[in-house]
Amino acid sequence: MSERFAKLDPPQRVLMGPGPSDVSVRVLQAMAAPTVGHLDPAYLAIMDETRQMMRDVFRTKNELTLAVSGTGSAGMEACVANLIEPGDEMIVCVNGVFGGRMRDVAQRYGATVHSVEADWGTTIDPAQVANALQEHPDTKLLGIVHAETSTGAHQPLEEISRLVHDAGALLLVDAVTSLGGMDVRVDDWQIDAIYSGTQKCLSCPPGLSPVSFSPAAVAAMDARKTQVTSWYLDMSMLRNYWGSDRVYHHTAPINMTYALREALAIVLEEGLDQRIERHQRNHLALRAGLEAMGLVWVPEHTLTTLNAVRVPEGVDDARVRSRLLGEYGIEIGAGLGPFKGKAWRIGLMGHASSKRNVMLLLAALESILADENANLARGEAAVAASRAYANA
Amino acid sequence: MSERFAKLDPPQRVLMGPGPSDVSVRVLQAMAAPTVGHLDPAYLAIMDETRQMMRDVFRTKNELTLAVSGTGSAGMEACVANLIEPGDEMIVCVNGVFGGRMRDVAQRYGATVHSVEADWGTTIDPAQVANALQEHPDTKLLGIVHAETSTGAHQPLEEISRLVHDAGALLLVDAVTSLGGMDVRVDDWQIDAIYSGTQKCLSCPPGLSPVSFSPAAVAAMDARKTQVTSWYLDMSMLRNYWGSDRVYHHTAPINMTYALREALAIVLEEGLDQRIERHQRNHLALRAGLEAMGLVWVPEHTLTTLNAVRVPEGVDDARVRSRLLGEYGIEIGAGLGPFKGKAWRIGLMGHASSKRNVMLLLAALESILADENANLARGEAAVAASRAYANA
Repeated sequence: MSERFAKLDPPQRVLMGPGPSDVSVRVLQAMAAPTVGHLDPAYLAIMDETRQMMRDVFRTKNELTLAVSGTGSAGMEACVANLIEPGDEMIVCVNGVFGGRMRDVAQRYGATVHSVEADWGTTIDPAQVANALQEHPDTKLLGIVHAETSTGAHQPLEEISRLVHDAGALLLVDAVTSLGGMDVRVDDWQIDAIYSGTQKCLSCPPGLSPVSFSPAAVAAMDARKTQVTSWYLDMSMLRNYWGSDRVYHHTAPINMTYALREALAIVLEEGLDQRIERHQRNHLALRAGLEAMGLVWVPEHTLTTLNAVRVPEGVDDARVRSRLLGEYGIEIGAGLGPFKGKAWRIGLMGHASSKRNVMLLLAALESILADENANLARGEAAVAASRAYANA
Repeated sequence: MSERFAKLDPPQRVLMGPGPSDVSVRVLQAMAAPTVGHLDPAYLAIMDETRQMMRDVFRTKNELTLAVSGTGSAGMEACVANLIEPGDEMIVCVNGVFGGRMRDVAQRYGATVHSVEADWGTTIDPAQVANALQEHPDTKLLGIVHAETSTGAHQPLEEISRLVHDAGALLLVDAVTSLGGMDVRVDDWQIDAIYSGTQKCLSCPPGLSPVSFSPAAVAAMDARKTQVTSWYLDMSMLRNYWGSDRVYHHTAPINMTYALREALAIVLEEGLDQRIERHQRNHLALRAGLEAMGLVWVPEHTLTTLNAVRVPEGVDDARVRSRLLGEYGIEIGAGLGPFKGKAWRIGLMGHASSKRNVMLLLAALESILADENANLARGEAAVAASRAYANA
């Protein structure tokens, strides 16, 4: 047997884009533990433990909490597909790519969708939601993005949750870029269905989507008159595998579950409050540094996990990103949709939200922009960031 | 930060069930390589390489060959969801769990399904297919399982393929338990759509599903009048990410792709023909040993990758499997459906198809069955297996 293929040797990046984020060696090593069977008692114990850890990170007691065997978009689709039957009315709030994606998925599964829209970079005003609910009193489900990865906007949820429940509807939340890095309180905020991804603030490789459903959401699924179109994402079967019955559905992604278990253990060992505070601290320092350079923030109400700034006038977006990657191994994200070529998205997620990464990115970006003759302040970023740390 | 959680420490099993199979350390190590971004040039190069390797293992030139970001069942759903529009007629051949699953998926996506059934453990007779095609001349797609994991039956495909194409229909094949261990010739056999899983004869952890579509299947997708219900599995978007456009769809499971790349490299380095021959050799030796003990084979036309035998009269199925796991760390599979409690399914897949595993399983099973007072021949298995190896 000859080794015809070159050794797989991906570079060691600094992942400061919109995800995946840097994964700790501890998680990578857990993922490389020996594969066992998906009905092995040892694996079932790991599932149970991982399930409880997901509940703790979601801050929920929801029984129906599990990891969908796909990435965050599969989690989105699982939530919509199981809660929507053809003809159901759903309000979807759209202020970026992921609200738009949720609307697309809802339409595919036959929902009559009413959109509540806001400009990219802004958040949804509760008054808009109130109006939409009044206009569409038969709304079964309202979907909204907590952390809009395409714009960096951070959506407050508590008032909207109250409005949705007063109208007798269910609340579906996209927490892909917030879970494990920003405050997400499923029970306190009365979220009925929520999904996230592993590769953002949980700092696990992509491949699984933690989801959780309230008792009201489970009741809505139990009351369905039609089968869920997607067999792979049908929660009525998935819950029998994750539950005590252990009915075989599909072969779970064993080693990905190992990685998620380890990533969640790291989150809980750090402590959710401490972790959220760390994301806040590093965000403030990065923001102080970028603004000291003269960069302009995109969203009014910003995430701490994803930082969107405008590409300065006259600067070649793609060349700067390519230089960051080539010279420093730093990945930052490009703009999407209307922000294409106009915004950078700098992630500070999970393991990658560190003082080391903040200071490195500021130094690297400042020197590249100087080299590219951008008309920006020079030599101010590191000092401003340091001061922000000192004042935190 | 305190390490509150115990070290993740799954046992080192010998995986001889219906999958997952044993994963080599080389694949586990590749999976633990540093995570990079899903649009990183280094990752795109790995995707391209992995894609070509999948084509080589499928023995196809099909441009549209990629790994679906889910397990084998997601691959099944991707094939059906993209080829079927509501009202389309589909024939599904059912002789076990996975044919039944394909029928379920097809019905969910709105197909008018005509079943061709055969007893569990038997194969589908081409004459049945010919009749069904004659009875349903508007059939768009015929689905059939090459390797029925629930019974161990090995389905010949060439004559059926000819009948399907003569009738102007497309052929969909489930190769979950055959790809990488038995002969699968996508182009020679004119298979239009095929899916497999990573955790069987490719000996990679579960989590991805290699799929491939012929130009005729792609034309059928291009001619759709309706959108694919599943956003996550919509091939019209997935092919733009895997293709030269690199349009962002969802975040690919980066580290799972590393593992698949490495597993495919191992397959191609061994050589497909040599690998198929190895599976054949180990199967014959196992069979010689099990039959020397007096065990009775289930399928008439058997797979070499999955070996189904009847549980001997009076033997406690669950206790024997539990003793194999507890005393030896060996996992074998239970029977499903009508075979529940009545059959054992012994996998010899990929990395796990070895003389060492054959001889270990025979010794372990023989001694446990003796201990359980099964009325079987004793002391014959190892010798019979050895002779089979000598004659191979």
